Amino acid sequence: MTDIDDTHDPSLVSWVESAAPGSDFPVQNLPLGIFSEAKGRRRPGVAIGDYILDLNGISDFLDEGWRGDFAQPVLNGWLARGHDSQRALRKRLVELLTDQRYRNDIEPQLIGQSEVRMHVPCLVGDYTDFYVGIHHATNVGKQFRPDNPLLPNYKYVPIGYHGRASSVRVSGEDVIRPNGQRKPPEAEAPEYGPSRRLDYELELGLWVGRGNRLGEPIPIGEAEQHIAGWCLLNDWSARDIQAWEYQPLGPFLAKNFLTSVSPWIVTSDALAPFRTPMPQRAAADPEPLPYLRSEGDTAFEIQLEVTLATDKMRQEGSAPHVLSRGTASAAMYWSAAQIVTHHASNGCNLQPGDLIGTGTLSTDSDSGLGSLLEISRGGKQPIELPSGESRTFLEDGDEVTLRAWCEAQDAVRIGFGECSGRVVGTA
Amino acid sequence: MTDIDDTHDPSLVSWVESAAPGSDFPVQNLPLGIFSEAKGRRRPGVAIGDYILDLNGISDFLDEGWRGDFAQPVLNGWLARGHDSQRALRKRLVELLTDQRYRNDIEPQLIGQSEVRMHVPCLVGDYTDFYVGIHHATNVGKQFRPDNPLLPNYKYVPIGYHGRASSVRVSGEDVIRPNGQRKPPEAEAPEYGPSRRLDYELELGLWVGRGNRLGEPIPIGEAEQHIAGWCLLNDWSARDIQAWEYQPLGPFLAKNFLTSVSPWIVTSDALAPFRTPMPQRAAADPEPLPYLRSEGDTAFEIQLEVTLATDKMRQEGSAPHVLSRGTASAAMYWSAAQIVTHHASNGCNLQPGDLIGTGTLSTDSDSGLGSLLEISRGGKQPIELPSGESRTFLEDGDEVTLRAWCEAQDAVRIGFGECSGRVVGTA
Repeated sequence: MTDIDDTHDPSLVSWVESAAPGSDFPVQNLPLGIFSEAKGRRRPGVAIGDYILDLNGISDFLDEGWRGDFAQPVLNGWLARGHDSQRALRKRLVELLTDQRYRNDIEPQLIGQSEVRMHVPCLVGDYTDFYVGIHHATNVGKQFRPDNPLLPNYKYVPIGYHGRASSVRVSGEDVIRPNGQRKPPEAEAPEYGPSRRLDYELELGLWVGRGNRLGEPIPIGEAEQHIAGWCLLNDWSARDIQAWEYQPLGPFLAKNFLTSVSPWIVTSDALAPFRTPMPQRAAADPEPLPYLRSEGDTAFEIQLEVTLATDKMRQEGSAPHVLSRGTASAAMYWSAAQIVTHHASNGCNLQPGDLIGTGTLSTDSDSGLGSLLEISRGGKQPIELPSGESRTFLEDGDEVTLRAWCEAQDAVRIGFGECSGRVVGTA
Repeated sequence: MTDIDDTHDPSLVSWVESAAPGSDFPVQNLPLGIFSEAKGRRRPGVAIGDYILDLNGISDFLDEGWRGDFAQPVLNGWLARGHDSQRALRKRLVELLTDQRYRNDIEPQLIGQSEVRMHVPCLVGDYTDFYVGIHHATNVGKQFRPDNPLLPNYKYVPIGYHGRASSVRVSGEDVIRPNGQRKPPEAEAPEYGPSRRLDYELELGLWVGRGNRLGEPIPIGEAEQHIAGWCLLNDWSARDIQAWEYQPLGPFLAKNFLTSVSPWIVTSDALAPFRTPMPQRAAADPEPLPYLRSEGDTAFEIQLEVTLATDKMRQEGSAPHVLSRGTASAAMYWSAAQIVTHHASNGCNLQPGDLIGTGTLSTDSDSGLGSLLEISRGGKQPIELPSGESRTFLEDGDEVTLRAWCEAQDAVRIGFGECSGRVVGTA
């Protein structure tokens, strides 16, 4: 799974000039997504520089067997094929996009990214959200149990729960402030009205590739073969609704009004140069149970950033404010492989195009916190913005943008693109 | 919504003799499902007596506009049409199945139910499970908090959480005993292995008909228009996995290995004669918040029964043992309409073919408990079976069958059919 091959060579340069090293989408990346032009149908494309390459349009240059999948408005069928096909496509696209001999044929199938609309790349059968960000779990736990923030199961069980598939939307979708029941501690009874503690959560998402059959767990050694790729994920959260509703069955209406994802499926192949070992566990931490034990570089050095732009900041033309910066590998107590194996360990069947969130990824530093709940200490410490405004939670007009990328000395930068959403008032 | 019309007339009798009053499927019922014959394709049919009427086969006798939906292998498209179409179909089917003049044309399209295989009737986009069975919530709460079993939110919030759509299966599917992490209180660390506390949960399911758009709540007065019909639902549960994993985000692997549903969508129209007011609330109970307030007969007098058959009982040819009997209307603190309105109250979009479980429906009597967790008092009081065996939780070979029906003096019995599953050892 970890092989670096010719397609990772940092000296490869595409004839698409905007795909130069340093862009989000050099020829070493090649993430797939679903796009449409005005009045056009949804279809698969691959990001290269500032462009999308229409995979239908170049089907004469690709394996004939793939045509059916690339004619679909979602990528589920393609992802079901698994890694060998992904890798063969990657290899072929590198040829087509670097060799000048193909330029005349391929270039007409490039469309500017600014001219298209992107869509959720798969029909999401199930969306599951995990909670593997240990610093986030600790920060949130401290607000309830200062001396004992992590529950006893945390270092044995990759904690997860099911989310809502129908409200997964692509980056750019407005965030309609949800109504709900909220009950301040001092109030006698709850009220129903717009959430006053609307928050974002910085997460990574995994797109499931090959599935497993009901009743057949996925051994840890095979888990990565079931992961087609990665995206950014914003698990928008209404903290007041959450606090009142979540006992005893977990978050529900506090979360299911919207989940935003970035449009591109960044493959594990593209991320191969950024593999790294899982963080060293503390001496007191238990060994994972045998079904979750794995070796090798199963974490990824992915850089994360969250910015906020208010209405006022946009009007004044000032740059968005950086709320946090951090690294995914330092935040995740459990790897993507462990997440997948645990999810299927009871026989639960994963399907191509399922979406799995990691949970909020905060680092152990104040500059790397993945939610306003953490940054504002549960709303007690307002954040002062350069615009002179302050925030505890999100106000109408606020736009949150998540970004991710990988960088290393001997590899070309790989970008995830963006996942953004602007808060609008209750409908 | 509550109209009784000619199609409910108890004197209506079908020319299909096995549909005589007293059967599960008289002409006043007419639930839809998806079936297939050996090597045949999946298609919609309607239950009448011991038969299925092939809706494709009689399309010349139905509205031309429906043909596209009845040619599908799932009922999502049909359910999206809403109640007017459902009612028009019901009216037409009553004509076709009672008037002898149609018999020669219609009879060849009847297929014995014993000759077909039934399927999950919809592609389930999302499956949500609620917790509106107040006696169940009280019984379970007592095992943790004897003096204060219900949490403070219970009588304000119809508590629910998202379940797994991919593992929803039709009645008859084997229950593969799940593996998982379980940690007895006295053990220092958890172990991974087959669940030792495998349980069933007696629930009703709602099939969503017309959906709502993201961001647009469903007013309580319109909620029933979004419910296409009802089924039985068994929310199989591994109590040992649940106890260890569920904090803080709710049940996950303890539930998502399988959810069984009965194959027939029993329409709200068929249930109209069995409407009844919601149970009287106690004087100390709060009024529902305004968005959840409704009047009229919003509960349904549905009879429920659970039976257990062990391997030994089957070998000896003895009848299944009745584990519980009760009435849904007495068990539900929140109505189906309140469930739907609450689910969409934050703007969450429901879609045609979504499945919503009520939660376990126990009555306030020991003879009407909806799970072994309750009957065996958390495993402390074994149940003695007539076969000489005893049970706290399910053993391999045990088959659990849920049944439901409505009966009243001035109405014909309406049956739901069965929802059954047999436990088999871990794969």
